[in-house]
Amino acid sequence: MTASSARSEIRRLPDRGSYDPAVINSILDEALICHVGFLDEEGRPVVIPTIHARIGETLYLHGSPASRMLRTLAAGSQVSVTATLVDAIVLAKSHFHHSMNYRSAVVFGTARAVTDADEKAAAFRAIVEHLVAGRWDGARRPNEKESRATAVVAIDIEEGSAKQRTGPPIDDDEDMNLPHWAGLIPVGLERGPFEPVDQTPLPDHVRNWSPTGS
Amino acid sequence: MTASSARSEIRRLPDRGSYDPAVINSILDEALICHVGFLDEEGRPVVIPTIHARIGETLYLHGSPASRMLRTLAAGSQVSVTATLVDAIVLAKSHFHHSMNYRSAVVFGTARAVTDADEKAAAFRAIVEHLVAGRWDGARRPNEKESRATAVVAIDIEEGSAKQRTGPPIDDDEDMNLPHWAGLIPVGLERGPFEPVDQTPLPDHVRNWSPTGS
Repeated sequence: MTASSARSEIRRLPDRGSYDPAVINSILDEALICHVGFLDEEGRPVVIPTIHARIGETLYLHGSPASRMLRTLAAGSQVSVTATLVDAIVLAKSHFHHSMNYRSAVVFGTARAVTDADEKAAAFRAIVEHLVAGRWDGARRPNEKESRATAVVAIDIEEGSAKQRTGPPIDDDEDMNLPHWAGLIPVGLERGPFEPVDQTPLPDHVRNWSPTGS
Repeated sequence: MTASSARSEIRRLPDRGSYDPAVINSILDEALICHVGFLDEEGRPVVIPTIHARIGETLYLHGSPASRMLRTLAAGSQVSVTATLVDAIVLAKSHFHHSMNYRSAVVFGTARAVTDADEKAAAFRAIVEHLVAGRWDGARRPNEKESRATAVVAIDIEEGSAKQRTGPPIDDDEDMNLPHWAGLIPVGLERGPFEPVDQTPLPDHVRNWSPTGS
């Protein structure tokens, strides 16, 4: 992965940016979903949310072989994949300095259909494990028919960047004594009560599930 | 807003789709951020996360006048804007039927720079109120210089669609008695403890803030 082209160059507030693959990968891995950008038949941009998983420098997407997005991507599209984590609403004394604390990764690559049986099986496993770590051994694995009924697309990441904002609001000096409340409203994904379909005992991999993947 | 073209037609699992503007708008309004897809100078797709607000059938984005995205959009780009809310991880007895409960809205339009002072002021207000309802009166409003230092882009929504999945996993009959735990892991954005910058008393509009906007 490189950040050599203008496409991934961070021009605005470059101190908030990073080209470190470890930072980019940590955001891709924590995010439950990503947003995939590609061009439709008429060359117009389309953005679709989907589940993803990463193996090394490759992202995997999956779905129905009839999916318009997967069919378009499988033909070898240029793709932009973005994962975003929202951490806080930033309230300043002035509207102008309101902001959001977030971490985002924007990566670019060329998509390809995954047809090799081993790569496809590895992608299935990575996607299920990305959703719920430990789940590969916690449910029935795909059979031949199900594997045929699932299209997998790989995006070998060519370049990318991460951007984040952290910390409190930064107000102008002359606003510091205004009587308005300023500070952070932290936000994050939280788990609600499990909703089981039957009386099967809760396994550790479900009990320990965390939205941050840790 | 219409859904007249193939671009917004929901082909996969059409029972999960809707073209109802009320459904689409409710998702755009609940989402704290959206993902904006556009083409870069070389015609490649780029997806960037950003704060947004809706007034009627128009979405507003804002940022620095130096922002590459805003400058590209202001030139009159075709844009895809997608907002996604994740509601649950869906664990089935088989990997094949694992899924996610979510609500997403994908809308399309042509962007334009907002130069009219009244429309720009209305956009500022909508964006701040979308972030925190009641905040327009809770902080110092933009002055002339700050307004000039903020670019606003409007996207008049031409067409769009919503898609959602709700409910428990749907397993094949022959898998129902497998010993694997199946069910939902509900997830959603939650607020953490406020982090104020000073001793200003917490106002109602901050105390009552909710990630669902209600």
